[in-house]
Amino acid sequence: MRNKIDLNSDVGESFGNYKLGLDEEVIPLISSANIACGFHAGDPGVMRKTIGLAKEHGVAPGAHPGFPDLLGFGRRNMDASLEEIKDYITYQVGAIQAFAAAEGLPLQHVKPHGALYNMAVKNTAIWEAVAEALARLDPRLVLVVLAGVNRDELERIGSRFGIRIAYEFFGDRAYNPDGSLVSRKEPGSVIHDQDLAASRILKLVKEGKVVAKDGTEIELAADTICVHGDNPTAVTLTGKIRETLVSEGIEIAPMGSFL
Amino acid sequence: MRNKIDLNSDVGESFGNYKLGLDEEVIPLISSANIACGFHAGDPGVMRKTIGLAKEHGVAPGAHPGFPDLLGFGRRNMDASLEEIKDYITYQVGAIQAFAAAEGLPLQHVKPHGALYNMAVKNTAIWEAVAEALARLDPRLVLVVLAGVNRDELERIGSRFGIRIAYEFFGDRAYNPDGSLVSRKEPGSVIHDQDLAASRILKLVKEGKVVAKDGTEIELAADTICVHGDNPTAVTLTGKIRETLVSEGIEIAPMGSFL
Amino acid sequence: MRNKIDLNSDVGESFGNYKLGLDEEVIPLISSANIACGFHAGDPGVMRKTIGLAKEHGVAPGAHPGFPDLLGFGRRNMDASLEEIKDYITYQVGAIQAFAAAEGLPLQHVKPHGALYNMAVKNTAIWEAVAEALARLDPRLVLVVLAGVNRDELERIGSRFGIRIAYEFFGDRAYNPDGSLVSRKEPGSVIHDQDLAASRILKLVKEGKVVAKDGTEIELAADTICVHGDNPTAVTLTGKIRETLVSEGIEIAPMGSFL
Amino acid sequence: MRNKIDLNSDVGESFGNYKLGLDEEVIPLISSANIACGFHAGDPGVMRKTIGLAKEHGVAPGAHPGFPDLLGFGRRNMDASLEEIKDYITYQVGAIQAFAAAEGLPLQHVKPHGALYNMAVKNTAIWEAVAEALARLDPRLVLVVLAGVNRDELERIGSRFGIRIAYEFFGDRAYNPDGSLVSRKEPGSVIHDQDLAASRILKLVKEGKVVAKDGTEIELAADTICVHGDNPTAVTLTGKIRETLVSEGIEIAPMGSFL
Repeated sequence: MRNKIDLNSDVGESFGNYKLGLDEEVIPLISSANIACGFHAGDPGVMRKTIGLAKEHGVAPGAHPGFPDLLGFGRRNMDASLEEIKDYITYQVGAIQAFAAAEGLPLQHVKPHGALYNMAVKNTAIWEAVAEALARLDPRLVLVVLAGVNRDELERIGSRFGIRIAYEFFGDRAYNPDGSLVSRKEPGSVIHDQDLAASRILKLVKEGKVVAKDGTEIELAADTICVHGDNPTAVTLTGKIRETLVSEGIEIAPMGSFL
Repeated sequence: MRNKIDLNSDVGESFGNYKLGLDEEVIPLISSANIACGFHAGDPGVMRKTIGLAKEHGVAPGAHPGFPDLLGFGRRNMDASLEEIKDYITYQVGAIQAFAAAEGLPLQHVKPHGALYNMAVKNTAIWEAVAEALARLDPRLVLVVLAGVNRDELERIGSRFGIRIAYEFFGDRAYNPDGSLVSRKEPGSVIHDQDLAASRILKLVKEGKVVAKDGTEIELAADTICVHGDNPTAVTLTGKIRETLVSEGIEIAPMGSFL
Repeated sequence: MRNKIDLNSDVGESFGNYKLGLDEEVIPLISSANIACGFHAGDPGVMRKTIGLAKEHGVAPGAHPGFPDLLGFGRRNMDASLEEIKDYITYQVGAIQAFAAAEGLPLQHVKPHGALYNMAVKNTAIWEAVAEALARLDPRLVLVVLAGVNRDELERIGSRFGIRIAYEFFGDRAYNPDGSLVSRKEPGSVIHDQDLAASRILKLVKEGKVVAKDGTEIELAADTICVHGDNPTAVTLTGKIRETLVSEGIEIAPMGSFL
Repeated sequence: MRNKIDLNSDVGESFGNYKLGLDEEVIPLISSANIACGFHAGDPGVMRKTIGLAKEHGVAPGAHPGFPDLLGFGRRNMDASLEEIKDYITYQVGAIQAFAAAEGLPLQHVKPHGALYNMAVKNTAIWEAVAEALARLDPRLVLVVLAGVNRDELERIGSRFGIRIAYEFFGDRAYNPDGSLVSRKEPGSVIHDQDLAASRILKLVKEGKVVAKDGTEIELAADTICVHGDNPTAVTLTGKIRETLVSEGIEIAPMGSFL
């Protein structure tokens, strides 16, 4: 059983006059903040304010870089080359690093967003490209990837580039017996029952196991759990997850502190 | 007489499929490169390549941040607040810093672009905002400002925020007797005679003086001279300026090395 | 006393994943919809849906073109040339016209947004440029301008380019004795009392008069009243304004039907 | 043998301060201009000027809509939905229609650009979506598609939506025996020999045939030939193609005049 786990959430997704997400409410509940960097969401002012919120609540700031597709919120696959992806990562991570530096904070981690994350899950050459970009920029940065698949290859990528990898678990998603996520196109892919989501997270943290779609119990090692703050219900669930974990004696801590 | 001067030029202004400027030709002739950061020009790939060119030729890289106005090339005044300006500076400087860091280079300086530069010349509160952003981000960064006007105030801004200020001279622009630039709307504001431009630069470096529009000679202290690489003629002039200075025993050196 | 008045509102301001404004609730209450065209707000999908809502409720669609400044929501003055402004108008009006045409609707009117509108109020050369662009594109388009100032000049512009001008009144704004709006920087510039706003609108429609900031009653002829749907309170006020007018026997009708 | 053929070229691809393509030289040589609409290239001012050039030279204007990816010049596949594609088409076609209308010209045709065109060639549901958007907007618009593949399906699409289809031939591309283009990834996919390109075009127009990669002669009916104006060599070839065709008694005419 782990005695520490990280809770991460995508924040800083407002843009200009547009407000998205309950950052003020969810940031106090998490340990790592994935902050949008202006390509698919976020803007310079939002980035500054979100770094400020993270600092105020002792949350470790990270980058949440995405494709240059504000119109599609970075959720549409784009046929970008590996070189373009590396450049997009460098650019966006540098931008949010600057806002962190202005507050005296180091940037802790990088978690690719949306389509970029999903494409990397299916094509580890993208994880490799991101890892290479981080290694060149600042090898202290932790790369957040999906737990459950490609573990050996991801370990090799981490070793090769000398960066730490954090494996991420989704409490509100169903898993296949091979450790991959059930596609959103399939029924039952998203778990809407809050109690079930919380208990799955607890099982993962305490036993390192998750019950797959077919009922089999599979091993799944994760360092960080993705939680949400899009709406009041999501914030409530995040609070509940946090309480459940803490009441079981598990410490919520930034991934960089224990990896 | 100075024995060292810096030559700076705006580079990295290509974008995507669009090529602008003869960077490969002008970068070997200068000591400091002002690299566009993606708001008014430049993109992540162009930034990486331009940092690579600077490294190859031993040129000190700097940021050339502008307004978020690609369509207007950052040349149109925008009614942005001082807070917005600080945020735009932090974002863009961070982005180019990341590409420099990936090549093991520190970023040397920051020179605002186009309308942002021109607005700052008329409203020193903007210089102050930029200085504050740099001081928070990295106080080793040199701020490049227009020589000839507001000297005392700019010195105070540099002291207050603990950053170095580099004063910039334009060899191809006419000056008013008060040290300000003759407006581009007036006839004779731009000096097209290459020999004259080169001799004005030499006089500035050797004597610290420039002949104003009305024929009077005024004192003007500058650390860096803006040269151009937009077209073959500009590159030729830049080469000529460089040769003239070197043949007079003046060393062309990055501003950060002597400020 | 007028027996007809138009109610217009800015709608279609959502963008991609970002939702803004209660369009579904305010559109049934108005007669003319000013639809954002993708430069400062709105996107192709939002434009299609908003045209659909306008059609469903028998509301006349219009364009609400702004500066190309999504980040600043078109609220920042930009030093664009008159030619650039004409081009931005043509582009945006054409885009929304296409969505209207796809639903078999003619576009009724054009009301510039935010900074573009405010700059035009201070510089009638901008009204003239917009009018010229509309005349070239489709002289049946009505141009919406601020009532109370520059009336003679605006009439001349309308005649010269052969287009109709609609004069707009703001029920929630204080007026100076000369018919201009009290600056938002001054106290009391915005009227928050809903009953007062409704009664001012009624007075304007019935008597063609408004009580200025200094208490004097001034004449002010307007064809259309700007109402809001940004939040539930605004929608409630809009509903109240509509009811008040209707109960007094005044017909709410699209400006193009009576101008 | 045909006695009329259309020559089309992609033009209006400059953006802001960035110039691309020799529009002034190539437009006098063609009969149909595919004008970029601001998503992957082009801007409002460039669109106005390009419509002006088309008018001056009696060339029929058309839209060249692409994905919203200026950074990738619309050449990267994007996972946009069919509904998004329809909306992007409507928006962009409307915008260029407005500039044409301002000059008293009807818009003749629509040719999707880059990745959007290539994706449609592989997935006719995209052609169908584009056709539907055009039919709703203005059924007089001609849709330009790749000749050689999916002919029956494309004819059905044209009939179903009541729009004309123009089939396009590429003189500088190798063809497979099934009428499809040889992939750019294969050697010999692009024909660099100008004489060969010109003779292939002549054969296509006179005999309706092209020699495929394997040496077999295949039938291929086309209405319009894509020519280029990116660089001086391309313009020279376009001039040569035009002369060759004219000297053989073939009239160069806008597709809309004979379809």
